[in-house]
Amino acid sequence: MKLNILGCYSATPRTFTNPTSQVLEINNHIFLIDCGEGTQVQLRKNKIKFNRIKHIFISHLHGDHFFGLVGLISTFRLLGRDTDLHIHAPKGLKEVIILQLKLGNSWTNYNLFFHELTNKNSELVFEDDKVEVYTIPLDHRVYTNGFLFREKEGERKLNMNEVLNANINVAYYRKLKQGFDVINEEGHLVKNDTVTLPPNPSKSYAFCSDTAYNETIIPIIKNVDVLYHESTFLEQHASLAIPTKHSTAKQAAKIAKLANVGQLILGHYSTRYDDLNVFKTEAQTEFENVELADDGKVFQF
Amino acid sequence: MKLNILGCYSATPRTFTNPTSQVLEINNHIFLIDCGEGTQVQLRKNKIKFNRIKHIFISHLHGDHFFGLVGLISTFRLLGRDTDLHIHAPKGLKEVIILQLKLGNSWTNYNLFFHELTNKNSELVFEDDKVEVYTIPLDHRVYTNGFLFREKEGERKLNMNEVLNANINVAYYRKLKQGFDVINEEGHLVKNDTVTLPPNPSKSYAFCSDTAYNETIIPIIKNVDVLYHESTFLEQHASLAIPTKHSTAKQAAKIAKLANVGQLILGHYSTRYDDLNVFKTEAQTEFENVELADDGKVFQF
Repeated sequence: MKLNILGCYSATPRTFTNPTSQVLEINNHIFLIDCGEGTQVQLRKNKIKFNRIKHIFISHLHGDHFFGLVGLISTFRLLGRDTDLHIHAPKGLKEVIILQLKLGNSWTNYNLFFHELTNKNSELVFEDDKVEVYTIPLDHRVYTNGFLFREKEGERKLNMNEVLNANINVAYYRKLKQGFDVINEEGHLVKNDTVTLPPNPSKSYAFCSDTAYNETIIPIIKNVDVLYHESTFLEQHASLAIPTKHSTAKQAAKIAKLANVGQLILGHYSTRYDDLNVFKTEAQTEFENVELADDGKVFQF
Repeated sequence: MKLNILGCYSATPRTFTNPTSQVLEINNHIFLIDCGEGTQVQLRKNKIKFNRIKHIFISHLHGDHFFGLVGLISTFRLLGRDTDLHIHAPKGLKEVIILQLKLGNSWTNYNLFFHELTNKNSELVFEDDKVEVYTIPLDHRVYTNGFLFREKEGERKLNMNEVLNANINVAYYRKLKQGFDVINEEGHLVKNDTVTLPPNPSKSYAFCSDTAYNETIIPIIKNVDVLYHESTFLEQHASLAIPTKHSTAKQAAKIAKLANVGQLILGHYSTRYDDLNVFKTEAQTEFENVELADDGKVFQF
């Protein structure tokens, strides 16, 4: 998995900071998560190939998370895109996108599918043979979901020395990778785990922005490798976090600890703070493995 | 008048080019004209004070001219704006802005007035004691207006030597500036033009983007000091200009010549051209006084 942060600041685009958007590369998929104003320029700057984006996930309908989407959809058309585009977003987004295209007497020359979300429980929103994506219901001022991206377990790996020793016909290798026991050339049963190794561990990534401190998400994100959790504020401004339904760095770290995640990435910073390192310091009082998102930063895991 | 180009490229925002937006400063007004995606960041980069913008004029509802507006409206709120904002734009814009604010359960903490345009003839859309703004109906793929900004004629200036010689009481100076004849201290009539000088010449600016070659605008923009006219294409791509209802540099210059304008500024370039100087060279075959717009460029006139 490769996570490319395009924007990780809250509220408004500024000269050197961008609102929320990130690209998750996983098993040849390029998933775009949220799409604040300016995302298409950030995609260019980060050299993401527009055509490889086939699924866009929008957490909620505050402007700093979707105002860049209609422009991106229009640009796809101007670039002559012909591959399908799927948008997973709260109900209402379709209406506003279609209205804007109509006002401009415009259209798309590719299939545009809206998958509108209304469920308040976690649900599977995308699945293929390698990846599945679930919503993570969050607690914000409007209907909001995070997204959990989970690689499916891969195939078992052949332990070639043992496979050759056991004298198994090559025709059975596929079955072995799938975990089956097989019969060898002498007609004896060979137990799968004596000649194969476990698959590479499957990775998982949870994106949680924006949300108040919310322990109900813990069962959904339990043991994920990487958790991106908003930390709009520091504890010193916890009183601002409550009415705006945001989290502090310490609260984000608490969630990370309770969910036993591998790593915590912080983002969605209020622009009131000049030095972001204080977010890391505060979070590390609860949870050690903390990284700071920043626009243009790439995480590989 | 001071014209600050924020963006002057067609179609999509790119790493180093921005879609249409410009700021006209005239008699203490700051008028924002068009508002493509990224305009709020361009306003910051060009150090335009957000609060001084009270009137926004939108030419038409293609994305490269208005996708930045909803974000700007939201940012005004976040910055605590309390002064009124007037938006002059084609019918339909109000619906799309209100819908997006509603979806985000959002609002404005200042009065937001929409003045929706539907008239196909030129009309007065703004007037105060110093400036008037008229629409310029253009010929594009959707309903489109350019805008004509015209300073009203100022007051006459006192020719103090003559005023003193004529022995006029200071109480009459105001009347003199307004062009009236007055009675002097001896009871004689003093003709206004014997003691005053004409006002400073009033300036005018016409913004015309996007449009096909369209001579019907000539009576409206006749003799303006400065004409901004789109030139999306060069003559070599004139065949693209026709179906898209855009102009070539040569056509823009022809309009400038026929309207007897003082200066022509070109913009709204297709991003297919690397060297913009060819636009100037082509236009100058028809009209000498040509300047090229570029993002961040300031014109004073």
